[in-house]
Amino acid sequence: MTKAIGGAGLRGQSAGSTALCTVGQSGTGLTYRGYDIAELADKVSFEEVAYLLLKGELPNSEQLANYRTKLKGLRGLPQPLKTVLEQIPADAHPMDVMRTGASMLGNLEPEATFADQYEKTDRLLAAFPSIICYWYRYSHDGVRIHTETDDDQIGAHFLHLLHDKKPSELHAKVMDVSLILYAEHEFNASTFTARVCASTLSDLVSCVTGAIGSLRGPLHGGANEAAMELIEELRDEQHARATLAYKLEHKEKIMGFGHAIYRESDPRNGIIKGWSEKLAAEFGDDRLYRVSVACESFMWEQKKLFCNADFFHASAYHYMGIPTKLFTPIFVCSRLTGWAAHVFEQRANNRIIRPSADYTGPEPRSVPDISER
Amino acid sequence: MTKAIGGAGLRGQSAGSTALCTVGQSGTGLTYRGYDIAELADKVSFEEVAYLLLKGELPNSEQLANYRTKLKGLRGLPQPLKTVLEQIPADAHPMDVMRTGASMLGNLEPEATFADQYEKTDRLLAAFPSIICYWYRYSHDGVRIHTETDDDQIGAHFLHLLHDKKPSELHAKVMDVSLILYAEHEFNASTFTARVCASTLSDLVSCVTGAIGSLRGPLHGGANEAAMELIEELRDEQHARATLAYKLEHKEKIMGFGHAIYRESDPRNGIIKGWSEKLAAEFGDDRLYRVSVACESFMWEQKKLFCNADFFHASAYHYMGIPTKLFTPIFVCSRLTGWAAHVFEQRANNRIIRPSADYTGPEPRSVPDISER
Repeated sequence: MTKAIGGAGLRGQSAGSTALCTVGQSGTGLTYRGYDIAELADKVSFEEVAYLLLKGELPNSEQLANYRTKLKGLRGLPQPLKTVLEQIPADAHPMDVMRTGASMLGNLEPEATFADQYEKTDRLLAAFPSIICYWYRYSHDGVRIHTETDDDQIGAHFLHLLHDKKPSELHAKVMDVSLILYAEHEFNASTFTARVCASTLSDLVSCVTGAIGSLRGPLHGGANEAAMELIEELRDEQHARATLAYKLEHKEKIMGFGHAIYRESDPRNGIIKGWSEKLAAEFGDDRLYRVSVACESFMWEQKKLFCNADFFHASAYHYMGIPTKLFTPIFVCSRLTGWAAHVFEQRANNRIIRPSADYTGPEPRSVPDISER
Repeated sequence: MTKAIGGAGLRGQSAGSTALCTVGQSGTGLTYRGYDIAELADKVSFEEVAYLLLKGELPNSEQLANYRTKLKGLRGLPQPLKTVLEQIPADAHPMDVMRTGASMLGNLEPEATFADQYEKTDRLLAAFPSIICYWYRYSHDGVRIHTETDDDQIGAHFLHLLHDKKPSELHAKVMDVSLILYAEHEFNASTFTARVCASTLSDLVSCVTGAIGSLRGPLHGGANEAAMELIEELRDEQHARATLAYKLEHKEKIMGFGHAIYRESDPRNGIIKGWSEKLAAEFGDDRLYRVSVACESFMWEQKKLFCNADFFHASAYHYMGIPTKLFTPIFVCSRLTGWAAHVFEQRANNRIIRPSADYTGPEPRSVPDISER
């Protein structure tokens, strides 16, 4: 006998426990191990957040310096992985590239036992910007980049590889904040994918590869790219309102608004919005920021829908010269920390995740001879 | 507020509906779209089962002939995929190879829209034996095999590529039955992984890649390999009983017995056991079969534990000259049909699968300055 569920998609159902994150609890919209997202984004760096999620507590100065040094030493890619990335055409979906790059690394550097899980996570954390940028620069610019930079931070390293020059302080800071905002979000679909996979006691790379595949879906990770496609067409505030009004009237999906869990606002939105405004001022053309603000006001007035974390990420990333199709791979570079921390949790108190289903198919029947079909 | 769950791992909880399969319902242990597994294994071929699962009904003669012809035409691998497989070392985990091969194919032949889902599934169904055998023969024997044979059936094709010769009728038949037995099993962990991924509206290859990662786990797909490792050490019936008695006494895990859903027997066991006996007679040395039977009796007498589908698969595959490490990749070649059919179902009536979690972490706290950590 299976129990009835309250709604499709396991919405509102507990599928396990976690010490990593709260989403949408009163008072604090989003916390990582008890720390509010706004305070983390204001006071610490992404490497500290990664350390917090993976090891349980924020690092002290010495631990942080050691962790950054360690990650810097793990940015190189083995030659067979580079060869694989060179086989992937320029028009491939960048999330397919991430999925394949991660999967390939699992062949070359397997997780021998679960005691390796921290090492393997650090390796992926350091290698992901290298993987996506190596493929991107090779397939688009025809160059084989050296993937080891001396940047202390992962966000700056990513921008450095992408643009072949050290980023400005402002850009390095915004990338760092962005990685913090996307790092962890409880049992979202990609994280839940990772936990289902982990529950079979599979290896970390399998869990991460599966999670990348789920994050690829347009209902999950692709919203910031969809938001970019929307706003880049908007000439000014008036055009923004007219375009959204048309879309609402024709019941077209507008990405970057609302959320499966949050009901009144997304605590990450105000943070990235503030940085997008600063980037716009530096960039010297604030059209994308202004039309984004116009969209935000209009959607609230018309539909009481708020911007989620993705909407102002679109303009922010664009101001930093990041191609739209790399937006979701950046999400991977960040969310890896949450995925891995959830895999560790699942492994520490595991039972295989194997739900049941309500049967809606044919009654028992006999196989007809092929001549009678 | 989240609802409490009955048990960890969503056991006994419905996570959705399916028309594909019943598991453990009274009267018929396992059905695919209403047909009992025993009758399917007796009367039809794997290609008919694939057609049934993917398209809803068993094919007639013309449909079956056309389907086999179509699949035969899809066995070739593009050169970039071969290059990728050649980068993977001989000591890699074969499931990592499957995961990477599938993922790479998704870069080269993307699913442009969901209308492509049938074509993409057929392509994977035809290509998977080629992928695993190309890598295996290249990395182990140093040869670049031609992956297109004229065998009508997928099981025979696999054996042909592996051994570089057409299989006997008996071997072709047993492979065919084996693929039928493993094709579908409701919301098992790998299938559920595929459905979670599908619920984000990601592409088919992402769903399949994630499912491969979950099937890789020793609690899920690896049981027939573990069973082989057990039985190949057993000299005779007496040694089998003594070894199992020792393992039970020391509380060692014995793979290939019991099941998460079935309580009294696994309906697939008797079928593959019968074929294993025939293979043993043909092979001329029935030790593996005899010790397997001794294990089955002993575990039932001592623990009321029955063999699941995996246990007699070990001896059957071994008698056909299949290396133990390729057992789980064969499972992939078969279960792909179930995974894909579940992806189609999920897409047809979708809501993103996003459960909640019970929070067990720290209370809200302030970020300490780094000098105070």
